[in-house]
Amino acid sequence: RVGPRGEDQDLLLAAAYVSDAQYNRNVPFETSPQAVRLYHFYNHWTMRAATYFFIWVDLALALFEEPALFPLPFLATSIAEVLCLTAFFGRLVHFAKVTPQMVFWKDTKNICIMVTIVLTLIDLITYGSLEAVNIHGVRWSRALRPVFLINFPESRQIRRAFRSIRNTLPDILYVFLLFIFSVLIFSLMALKLFGDRGLKTVQGSPYFTNILDIAFELYVLVTTANSPDVMMPAYEFNWWYSLYFITYIIINTYIFMSVFLAVVYNNYRKHLKNEIRTLAYLKRHKMIEAFNILKVKVGTEFVVKEAQWRQLAKVVEPDISSSHLELLLRISDEGQKGYVDKTNFLRLADLLNIQVVTINIKRHPLEAWMPRVYQSSPSLLVQKMVRHRIFVWVYDVIILINAIFIALDEKNPLISYAEWLFLSLYIIEILLKLYTYEPRAYFGRKQFWNWCSETGMLDGCVLFPARKYNSQQILDIVLILRILRLLRVIVSIQRFRVIVTTLINIGPTMLTFGGLVLVVYYVFAIIGMEVFHGKVHFFDPGSTSPDALVCGNPALKDSAFARGRYCRNNFNDLPASLILLTELTVVNQCFALLADGFALVTHQAAKLYFIGFHVVVVILIVNIFIAFILEAFFVAYSLEKSEVETAIEKKIQELGVGVQEEEVQDGKLIDNVDAKDSGFSGDDGDNKRKALKGLYFRIASKKYKTVDALLQQMFESEIAPEDEGPSLEEILNFSPSDVHPKNPSFENSA
Amino acid sequence: RVGPRGEDQDLLLAAAYVSDAQYNRNVPFETSPQAVRLYHFYNHWTMRAATYFFIWVDLALALFEEPALFPLPFLATSIAEVLCLTAFFGRLVHFAKVTPQMVFWKDTKNICIMVTIVLTLIDLITYGSLEAVNIHGVRWSRALRPVFLINFPESRQIRRAFRSIRNTLPDILYVFLLFIFSVLIFSLMALKLFGDRGLKTVQGSPYFTNILDIAFELYVLVTTANSPDVMMPAYEFNWWYSLYFITYIIINTYIFMSVFLAVVYNNYRKHLKNEIRTLAYLKRHKMIEAFNILKVKVGTEFVVKEAQWRQLAKVVEPDISSSHLELLLRISDEGQKGYVDKTNFLRLADLLNIQVVTINIKRHPLEAWMPRVYQSSPSLLVQKMVRHRIFVWVYDVIILINAIFIALDEKNPLISYAEWLFLSLYIIEILLKLYTYEPRAYFGRKQFWNWCSETGMLDGCVLFPARKYNSQQILDIVLILRILRLLRVIVSIQRFRVIVTTLINIGPTMLTFGGLVLVVYYVFAIIGMEVFHGKVHFFDPGSTSPDALVCGNPALKDSAFARGRYCRNNFNDLPASLILLTELTVVNQCFALLADGFALVTHQAAKLYFIGFHVVVVILIVNIFIAFILEAFFVAYSLEKSEVETAIEKKIQELGVGVQEEEVQDGKLIDNVDAKDSGFSGDDGDNKRKALKGLYFRIASKKYKTVDALLQQMFESEIAPEDEGPSLEEILNFSPSDVHPKNPSFENSA
Repeated sequence: RVGPRGEDQDLLLAAAYVSDAQYNRNVPFETSPQAVRLYHFYNHWTMRAATYFFIWVDLALALFEEPALFPLPFLATSIAEVLCLTAFFGRLVHFAKVTPQMVFWKDTKNICIMVTIVLTLIDLITYGSLEAVNIHGVRWSRALRPVFLINFPESRQIRRAFRSIRNTLPDILYVFLLFIFSVLIFSLMALKLFGDRGLKTVQGSPYFTNILDIAFELYVLVTTANSPDVMMPAYEFNWWYSLYFITYIIINTYIFMSVFLAVVYNNYRKHLKNEIRTLAYLKRHKMIEAFNILKVKVGTEFVVKEAQWRQLAKVVEPDISSSHLELLLRISDEGQKGYVDKTNFLRLADLLNIQVVTINIKRHPLEAWMPRVYQSSPSLLVQKMVRHRIFVWVYDVIILINAIFIALDEKNPLISYAEWLFLSLYIIEILLKLYTYEPRAYFGRKQFWNWCSETGMLDGCVLFPARKYNSQQILDIVLILRILRLLRVIVSIQRFRVIVTTLINIGPTMLTFGGLVLVVYYVFAIIGMEVFHGKVHFFDPGSTSPDALVCGNPALKDSAFARGRYCRNNFNDLPASLILLTELTVVNQCFALLADGFALVTHQAAKLYFIGFHVVVVILIVNIFIAFILEAFFVAYSLEKSEVETAIEKKIQELGVGVQEEEVQDGKLIDNVDAKDSGFSGDDGDNKRKALKGLYFRIASKKYKTVDALLQQMFESEIAPEDEGPSLEEILNFSPSDVHPKNPSFENSA
Repeated sequence: RVGPRGEDQDLLLAAAYVSDAQYNRNVPFETSPQAVRLYHFYNHWTMRAATYFFIWVDLALALFEEPALFPLPFLATSIAEVLCLTAFFGRLVHFAKVTPQMVFWKDTKNICIMVTIVLTLIDLITYGSLEAVNIHGVRWSRALRPVFLINFPESRQIRRAFRSIRNTLPDILYVFLLFIFSVLIFSLMALKLFGDRGLKTVQGSPYFTNILDIAFELYVLVTTANSPDVMMPAYEFNWWYSLYFITYIIINTYIFMSVFLAVVYNNYRKHLKNEIRTLAYLKRHKMIEAFNILKVKVGTEFVVKEAQWRQLAKVVEPDISSSHLELLLRISDEGQKGYVDKTNFLRLADLLNIQVVTINIKRHPLEAWMPRVYQSSPSLLVQKMVRHRIFVWVYDVIILINAIFIALDEKNPLISYAEWLFLSLYIIEILLKLYTYEPRAYFGRKQFWNWCSETGMLDGCVLFPARKYNSQQILDIVLILRILRLLRVIVSIQRFRVIVTTLINIGPTMLTFGGLVLVVYYVFAIIGMEVFHGKVHFFDPGSTSPDALVCGNPALKDSAFARGRYCRNNFNDLPASLILLTELTVVNQCFALLADGFALVTHQAAKLYFIGFHVVVVILIVNIFIAFILEAFFVAYSLEKSEVETAIEKKIQELGVGVQEEEVQDGKLIDNVDAKDSGFSGDDGDNKRKALKGLYFRIASKKYKTVDALLQQMFESEIAPEDEGPSLEEILNFSPSDVHPKNPSFENSA
């Protein structure tokens, strides 16, 4: 179907669909040629980067505004903020031109951004004019800044995490109410049991006499922050009373906190599957749209011509190398018939997503240069030695010994000399490896582990000059890098790899959580800075001022807060606030201490701020984080022994075996490199190689895929290739309960 | 097949099989008539109770031995111990007579018990003779006492939990090594980063200068116990350094601890399924054995005669009521043909396991006594009122108001009088309910919730006399009961019930964990008592002795341990040790404080004891506990909307509908009672009632089943009724990896 538009325009439209399918973007865009062109521009990486740049500038403004780490005048920060707002507005206008009017105004994301822009402007103007007449206002709109981070279409992952939280809320709420109820019942009991005993706490204040204080103490006990202090007076009075606290801890700390995790995890899992199903169907939907645009009839079936297919791939992925393109075409057009059929066309997005590493297999330069010397028997012996397992083990042992030397006293001159010895050993290792392996092959492999050990060696070269200048910062970084060398040892042990690989896979999605946590922290930090800034001051450790003992606030006299030298934990600038919030996340005695301290310098109600933070961060976000790690590991474990390969990967492998014969001979080198350095070769054939015109292709290991990608892949392999999927309406209205089978079986119930 | 034995002996043998199937016992016993009789005696409740009694006496001996809570002479405790050992030996001999020789000597359980008995005797004799010449020995064998608790066949659940731990160990070990490795790498970094800075801790000691101290501090940081104290000196020096600690916490506290949970949970789930499959097949195996013993040929098929079936049920369950037996027979012998076929016979164990509540429906005594008054319109109005929802709500509100009054100051005479008002309101409620519902029906229902509110009312009656005598202990208990009244309010809210029901279901299995925790705590407590007893003393809070400030040990001068008034946390007797270990389980600042304190009074190596405890209890047992709660909730959630009914339950329901017509009329009363009080009625028909000769039968709700029972039931419903299952050999050699599908699908993978 060649529409009224020209071929170029068709190609652009199809490319937009394919690109959306490739990156799982779900933006309903207009199909007019101009809108499609604008949409391509909208998705261009420069535009996205600019948006992120302005978002970060906007968030970073808190560093320069009162209370500031680096103070700047209000005029400067407000101009910067207005600039950011303009950029956001521009981006929004761009988006409005791309998407249909109806859809644009129905989307809460866009409304949110607009409202926030208007509110921020109002706040800026009010604050500015109040400041002009010397009245100090509150810059409340600053707490809204994360809205921009959440609501731009680029932050799909963060929004998904938020959706996850929102979906969990109703279920969590009931457990939370039950939990609060239980805390209150225990508070009542405590009041009756201990209130009239005349007991005193360690600080000499009356023990458990006020129901509100009791409820707060018991809430804190759930965080385990004041255990066993809160119990000691009653325990000293009669040891039977400790049973009350043990019961409380079992019920509220262990059982209820596990129930929170169970509820969060259950919801997380349910919604994850639903979202993945939706994504998979939407992807197929988009690929079918793209096919329908480009298809021509050949014989009885609709296909896409090879030339068009090539052009399309080039538009979607402008940087694709021609050999890579050739490989993909060979996979898509099996019979070399000059066209790609529907089933193969639908795979294009997946094909483009497969990371194919191209390795130019060449002879070692030395071999070309002086073949007789390089092929002589001593030279071959050296090469064999370097390729042997024992070579790796010897260097692992050397690294371990080096670590022990690092742990020992460095002032000892002998140890200082030993460091030179280790450095030369590492340099020898590099040289030997360069001698044995083709240099470009050695450095070209994007292997995480390789780089780890490389940096470990390089740092040595930096270390010694740096020590002369005694530049503290550089030395610190180099020292850390030196110790990272130890990571190489882990990699040589097979059993650790599954764990480490899963941990590395989690990495990218962890950034999502980073975003989520940042949003919550930022809002709490801004609120905390407005409420608590300047209440507590930090004095240099050497300071002899009497104020230093009470953190500059007489209200803290004799408090545990001041005694514990906690003055540095304050809300006086953004980094300090964020670090304080991190400490609160790691609930501990500091939780009670900090809450008490800030309540002392302001009002008892300040404790609500700390409890609120605990509920949001520890009960919700940390649990989602744990749920996410659990899920990642369960998927990793359940796939450990099975071969989950997409049809495409199988095909690449088949094609590889069928085409290339000389591979066997040259492959040996790669095999050796793999087995020794990449560390992820062998067992289940995930390092399939494909040689084409002297090039080797390797598929990035399946083990490096994220949970989402793995699950989506599994789901897609379960949809039949002819299945057109439900209609767009149906897809968008999937509900999570559809995913769960009505009659759970023994297999999937638990 | 009537064997050479008499009919009685056949019956006994079959009954042994059925009983074993009913209680999931897996003891291979001899089939000779004498052995079967002995086996019945072995399983008799008196014998089991006696065994448990001696186990508890043996464990409780630690209360009376040095260091003792209630000191007794060595002679007395050693005689008691010898008595216990004799009882254990007797039990073992009894078991040896029941089971085949080969099996007995192959079973590590029996060997364990014998070795422990011998070791304990040796220890007793050595210690006694050393004591006689006034040399103080170490009663090391006391740490072995939990062996008896674990290894008697009755403690299958605890052994299973231990097996679960053992199975998890290899996987955990690798993660643990990786974790220790990461801690060590971070320690090295810390040494290099902070060692040369000359920083001081709050106590003024040098900061991070010794690699071992650093490693300990960082290990404690994983437990979050010394956060943020450990960070403060570096943070005060430069806030960039806090990034080091934040990285550490993210990697080691959050990610690694989640990975531990993931590994434990994954193994728990895998092995749970395997065990359940094994149990289900063994059960079927035993029922088939029983059938083969009793079967006779009628027509073309083998069946069991009704009379024999009756006798068998009577032998297995001597206390079964004849109406209950009649009901079961009616289910098993559908066509009333006078015999039970194989399929129905195999269900006998499940039938006996179904809790059927018999309710004798009678008219209200008042109705029989003075029908005209009871049926008069004002009386009917009262009854209607009491049955109405609003009646329950009104009393919920009254209870809430009462709770608020309890929270208020009790010395106020007005509030004291209000208590009388509430008491009379509760008495009125009881009287009204007794007037409306048939008394036996009202009290006869074994409803947890009912009893909760009942005790709430009864306590009121105890409270006032008790106050006169001012008996502290009684008052305390009564006060707690009074507050439990509040639980009634929860029950009236539907959404809370799922959570609360699941929590209650967890109850019985929690006892398993109680046993597991007890074993571990006991061993650690005994070791702790031997090592640390008498090192720290507790002085009465009023004591003015200078020793009181340092807990009686000068080594604790100026330590945080003494400053925090932690002297009560010592190993001077068993309860104190157990409470101390509980505090350690709730890792907190106390963890570091206690470890430091006890290291001060003994040796730095004492910290290893505390780290060992943390690894065993927090990393292993608490995670298994969480895994167990997660699993329970996931099963509960996945079953929430589905109808999982065994064939038998369906049959009881069908039979109920088919037989009883008058139910509709009288059922109304039950319905009302259910809806208002039992709280678990209605929605999905789990309160099926069966009326037979004027009796009502109710199946205990499926919601009250444990995870194990639910899973077993699901698995059994998936085995075909004719399926004889694998051979005994195969069943016993099932491996957990068989359960997991080789190619995980989207549905069951995550």
